[in-house]
Amino acid sequence: MKNNDSVEIQLISSIRKNFPQMTKVPRGFVGIGDDCAVIPQSASQMQIVSTDMLVEGVHFLFNRIKPEDLGYKSLAVNLSDIAAMGGIPKYAFLSMSLPKNFEYKWVKKFYKGFQDLAKTHKVLLLGGDTTGSGIISISVTILGEVNLKKIKKRSMAQAGDLIYVTGPLGDSRAGLEWVLKESPIYPKNIQTLVHRHYRPRPHIEEGLWLSQFPQVHAMMDLSDGLASDLRQIQTQSNCGAQIELDNLPLSAELLSAAQNLKFDPKSYALLGGEDYVLMFTVEKSSGPALEKKFFKKFKRKLFKVGSVTSKSNRLEVKGDADSEYKPLSKTIQGFRHF
Amino acid sequence: MKNNDSVEIQLISSIRKNFPQMTKVPRGFVGIGDDCAVIPQSASQMQIVSTDMLVEGVHFLFNRIKPEDLGYKSLAVNLSDIAAMGGIPKYAFLSMSLPKNFEYKWVKKFYKGFQDLAKTHKVLLLGGDTTGSGIISISVTILGEVNLKKIKKRSMAQAGDLIYVTGPLGDSRAGLEWVLKESPIYPKNIQTLVHRHYRPRPHIEEGLWLSQFPQVHAMMDLSDGLASDLRQIQTQSNCGAQIELDNLPLSAELLSAAQNLKFDPKSYALLGGEDYVLMFTVEKSSGPALEKKFFKKFKRKLFKVGSVTSKSNRLEVKGDADSEYKPLSKTIQGFRHF
Repeated sequence: MKNNDSVEIQLISSIRKNFPQMTKVPRGFVGIGDDCAVIPQSASQMQIVSTDMLVEGVHFLFNRIKPEDLGYKSLAVNLSDIAAMGGIPKYAFLSMSLPKNFEYKWVKKFYKGFQDLAKTHKVLLLGGDTTGSGIISISVTILGEVNLKKIKKRSMAQAGDLIYVTGPLGDSRAGLEWVLKESPIYPKNIQTLVHRHYRPRPHIEEGLWLSQFPQVHAMMDLSDGLASDLRQIQTQSNCGAQIELDNLPLSAELLSAAQNLKFDPKSYALLGGEDYVLMFTVEKSSGPALEKKFFKKFKRKLFKVGSVTSKSNRLEVKGDADSEYKPLSKTIQGFRHF
Repeated sequence: MKNNDSVEIQLISSIRKNFPQMTKVPRGFVGIGDDCAVIPQSASQMQIVSTDMLVEGVHFLFNRIKPEDLGYKSLAVNLSDIAAMGGIPKYAFLSMSLPKNFEYKWVKKFYKGFQDLAKTHKVLLLGGDTTGSGIISISVTILGEVNLKKIKKRSMAQAGDLIYVTGPLGDSRAGLEWVLKESPIYPKNIQTLVHRHYRPRPHIEEGLWLSQFPQVHAMMDLSDGLASDLRQIQTQSNCGAQIELDNLPLSAELLSAAQNLKFDPKSYALLGGEDYVLMFTVEKSSGPALEKKFFKKFKRKLFKVGSVTSKSNRLEVKGDADSEYKPLSKTIQGFRHF
């Protein structure tokens, strides 16, 4: 259900163009374009469905990820989609293609990672398919449920809303960059960042808690990076957004690694993907009270990163409170010139 | 949900052994091991879910299958699983990995094939995922529904039942063998067989109609070949089976091609896969009446191919009415000596 990939963007636009009937769904349903599809089950109860595919060489490197981490992450990215709708995950289906000579031990560890997370969220693995292949590909489908009144869609943002995220940004990207270096040494802080890349915690509880507030409007999980994902909200809600870079939540580990390894932590926070925290918009007047309630409930802070504007599809950023908002070019290259 | 693949058999047995909690499901549910998973939705209504993965080089050869045929077949094999439970297909989710330089035309044709069949069965495509990859892999998940009283499981066969199939056997295998020859010429009858390989018709209507009869016990779709699939029924129902080879339904096209190309059509009918017709067992006394009703409804014959025995996991075959039943060795090699 992610949209960062150029293949996917081309494909979705080609589907919309050639098969409009595929994107036009009956009243009450949600089809392609949100974190989950929505299927009405009764007047108040909605079934939500998410499916994600992970492919060796594209989403993971076989020799760099532990099988138990891959199993965990295969489920986590789907659970995060359920969290983004304010839903409860219920059932999982896992399909895998594996090389003919796969090691039994590898699969056992993969299942352990998958199952550990499934147990945490009381998710029941009910089926799947397994087949041979030259490379490993993994397809997970999750069924969940949500009350109609609590459902949070990407299309619900309103001009004037504040934009929040439920956790620090950029850690996963920094972890990935380190993994790609193929260095045998893992400094202590880097280990934490790599762990956040491989074992993102799906914010199921946060999503469920936030879903009870009608003042919370749009919500989605951050899989492709704050800027890229915010564009999805903008497109679906026909709005714009402003982000203040100084407000992006950066972990102590990210700041320390950035200093040692000479990268720009704000750039990772704005553009790096796979954070798997939630981003949501909330009525301006309700923001401060929600921050307090969230802290009381989770003993952690909510992070206000910007606000929704009426400037359709315009994403603006500013470096600090004193500077002015400037449009963020739609490409990462654009940002480098910023 | 198929079990012919050695990778899958190993994997499923490893799951059962290491994660018994994964195969133990709450009362009313069905997990791994049938055509579909079953999720109770109300006292009488069950949701059924099937998922299948098709991988380039394993399930299809990119240069030998038309994209519209591949789109059709990707959905058809899943619909066939729904048919096997006596259910109605409702919603589809389609995930694909595609090479970065995929041709837009190819994808358009793939969707056309998928969508044509979806329309026929009023199936709504509600989502999916698309990603880059070196090879094409396709994962389809179907959600359907069935009434609790009508559901047909692999575990429901009873000793004494007659075994029927809803269409001719072996055509798809003969079509596949021709495709693998890579001959540029397609004789007329071969075209029909190749079409049956690429465009199997899921027997949704037949499954739905059969599901109304309590005398119909076990049912499944034939994806891996009659003998192999019958072993699934035997395992799940703790029974045996006898097949009379002379009774296997062979199409005129198969018989003609067998004569020209010198293959044994009964061997293809017994062991060749991807027929995607339904196999079911029915109370012996109800068989003849059901045959008549089926003919009246569908203007086609039902084919009686054998019967269920109490000999646990023993599959026996005989060549004609006059010979005696002998055990079919559990390997295809075994059959060649038969």
